[in-house]
Amino acid sequence: MPIITLTTDFGEKDHFAGTVKGAIYSELEDVRIVDISHSVDPFHLMEAAYIIQNAYKSFPPGTIHIIGIDSELNPENKHIAVLLDGHFFICANNGIISMLTSQIRPEKIVEINIHDRIESNFPVLDVFVKVACHIARGGTLEVIGKNIEKIKQLTGIKPVVNPENNQIIGNVIYIDNYGNVISNISRTLFEKIGKGRDFVISARTANFKTIHTHYSDAINFDLPHEKREEDGKKLALWNASGYLELAIYKSNPNTVGSASTLFGLAYRDTITINFSGK
Amino acid sequence: MPIITLTTDFGEKDHFAGTVKGAIYSELEDVRIVDISHSVDPFHLMEAAYIIQNAYKSFPPGTIHIIGIDSELNPENKHIAVLLDGHFFICANNGIISMLTSQIRPEKIVEINIHDRIESNFPVLDVFVKVACHIARGGTLEVIGKNIEKIKQLTGIKPVVNPENNQIIGNVIYIDNYGNVISNISRTLFEKIGKGRDFVISARTANFKTIHTHYSDAINFDLPHEKREEDGKKLALWNASGYLELAIYKSNPNTVGSASTLFGLAYRDTITINFSGK
Amino acid sequence: MPIITLTTDFGEKDHFAGTVKGAIYSELEDVRIVDISHSVDPFHLMEAAYIIQNAYKSFPPGTIHIIGIDSELNPENKHIAVLLDGHFFICANNGIISMLTSQIRPEKIVEINIHDRIESNFPVLDVFVKVACHIARGGTLEVIGKNIEKIKQLTGIKPVVNPENNQIIGNVIYIDNYGNVISNISRTLFEKIGKGRDFVISARTANFKTIHTHYSDAINFDLPHEKREEDGKKLALWNASGYLELAIYKSNPNTVGSASTLFGLAYRDTITINFSGK
Repeated sequence: MPIITLTTDFGEKDHFAGTVKGAIYSELEDVRIVDISHSVDPFHLMEAAYIIQNAYKSFPPGTIHIIGIDSELNPENKHIAVLLDGHFFICANNGIISMLTSQIRPEKIVEINIHDRIESNFPVLDVFVKVACHIARGGTLEVIGKNIEKIKQLTGIKPVVNPENNQIIGNVIYIDNYGNVISNISRTLFEKIGKGRDFVISARTANFKTIHTHYSDAINFDLPHEKREEDGKKLALWNASGYLELAIYKSNPNTVGSASTLFGLAYRDTITINFSGK
Repeated sequence: MPIITLTTDFGEKDHFAGTVKGAIYSELEDVRIVDISHSVDPFHLMEAAYIIQNAYKSFPPGTIHIIGIDSELNPENKHIAVLLDGHFFICANNGIISMLTSQIRPEKIVEINIHDRIESNFPVLDVFVKVACHIARGGTLEVIGKNIEKIKQLTGIKPVVNPENNQIIGNVIYIDNYGNVISNISRTLFEKIGKGRDFVISARTANFKTIHTHYSDAINFDLPHEKREEDGKKLALWNASGYLELAIYKSNPNTVGSASTLFGLAYRDTITINFSGK
Repeated sequence: MPIITLTTDFGEKDHFAGTVKGAIYSELEDVRIVDISHSVDPFHLMEAAYIIQNAYKSFPPGTIHIIGIDSELNPENKHIAVLLDGHFFICANNGIISMLTSQIRPEKIVEINIHDRIESNFPVLDVFVKVACHIARGGTLEVIGKNIEKIKQLTGIKPVVNPENNQIIGNVIYIDNYGNVISNISRTLFEKIGKGRDFVISARTANFKTIHTHYSDAINFDLPHEKREEDGKKLALWNASGYLELAIYKSNPNTVGSASTLFGLAYRDTITINFSGK
């Protein structure tokens, strides 16, 4: 059974997501629709890019991913369908999947050209659903678009390495539900530049000299409970997506606070790693 | 496979929606349950009316829509099942589908009378699920209720036209996830009254002399980027549901603001269209 | 078709829930995944306990429930799978299902031991999905874990009865979407201790001498509308889960207020019932 996923900024309340699902079921009897997220911040391309990049991989090959963010057709915002890593992505050409295409070469990109008689301002419903159902029925991308080579790039996806190769300057690209702060610095880049040298991670006033692999690494379980200082215990770690993350052990943005609130870090803020020695 | 949709004010957190889904799967092996919304503001009949009106149409005929808002049975709040436009709606007789029945004549309305031994205060679970599964199995409405002719009306659904036919006075009926302000003034009414005359839309301090069809119409793409003034660009447009909507281009209520926050418009506020000439 | 439910604190926005669903569909072609809640407050074990306790019962026997709260494996937080009341529960041994096991004796508890090569910090994805799919395929618990007898207990689940048997001291264990305040005092305990005596329920400044069974019981429908005082009408009732709940008729935390906001009651606050006579 084909799988169609939805990643949008429609929110949880409005009829938009429900309407899209109804339209898919009206076209296809046998299909599985999976919500990845409808709570992307409105028009926040980077958030959507981070979410879809991390979610798509766990789905079976052939899955069709609709990304409904900033998708109104206009002279500078065309619609595309992309085949990459065995998955199909349908979205606007606004940079939203450039985070993916910068890491994995797409097998095919087409600019969708089935808009002749479609006039509404709800393109996910009118265009993306049609394209998704076409693909789900086994249709090819060439039928619904023309091949293109390049797509628009999102800025700020990649961290900068200084010429001396002893500094990585990254940015906050995402704040998660626990208030953990996720940077664009990947473990691969860190190991390539760092080569095992000592380092200090700086993010505003917070500093870290170790990068852990588990949140529980913040706690010394050999100590008795009363000596542990579990609360507000900060740490840097490689998250399950392979990015450098700054976290607070068992954080909760609404109560005890989180890395985002306690370190004062927001989207686009700088996170720097300085390596010592050479 | 039958489809049952859910539109409720249960919220995203509580067990209510999950419990209802479990009960449906316990009765029916082969059924598709689709969430339309669980984030209707508690007891907000107009929001629910707007959401279900816009969502139901995209589903295949025969779909069964459970609407769980203000549904506790009491002497003034009976339960009904309605067949309208080929779809089934199960809800309380509190006006929630009068927005639909005011536009499309229902084929059948029954007042549900299977409450003999049902005593809990969770009627969606106890009553609506039973009725939905009955219909999904092909059962008729007459078996679970008695025919009635009239249902309760929601006030404020319809805009008022002045006797001179040069003014439409409407209201805000919904604020969407982008903070766009949706009125109860339909394109059909506007064209019938306006007959091509010039007009001014007034909503508090904001005025509009054009109604667009796309959000991007706010922007002049012929101008170079630096001359465009994209930010906070306001517009009036016909939304995908056919209603007059006041919007800000690429709005975000949490950051750059939205039509609702910038124009100071809330639910029930007045939106007036004055036509000039005669 | 096997059913796997998800109850987590992942939130509605992040990729976590979508990723977990993709992983399940990658392992099993024919499975039904049902979201119970992803909006449990981060690391809030009691909330999760209350939600899963109320939701699981309506699902068919054999349903597999993944509970992803505070699930990182560490020396003091092992993973368990539990067979109870014909349902399977997969979670961390952090007390989260002790609310269930205190009422119904589990048929089997195993400590999961398939972690040999699993190293990530996303155990719901790496461990719980594997265990759930194993069970969905008909596998036994013994294959993925070793039998244990006892599990960790959550504190504050049970109310206290004084030695004179004329007072029950309970706590707030949950605040629902309507701001209704739910206590840990069950109808069974109340009837066992109260034996039909008069009583006063006290919660901060609010007092109640009657426990209703429907929210509408707050209103006297025999009176004409203008004499009814519907707004802010408070009541105590047995909710559909069998717990004592303090509520406001048609409450809305964002507008007219709710039991939680109006009575000033939060999680863990005390609710006392004093019985008179003996």
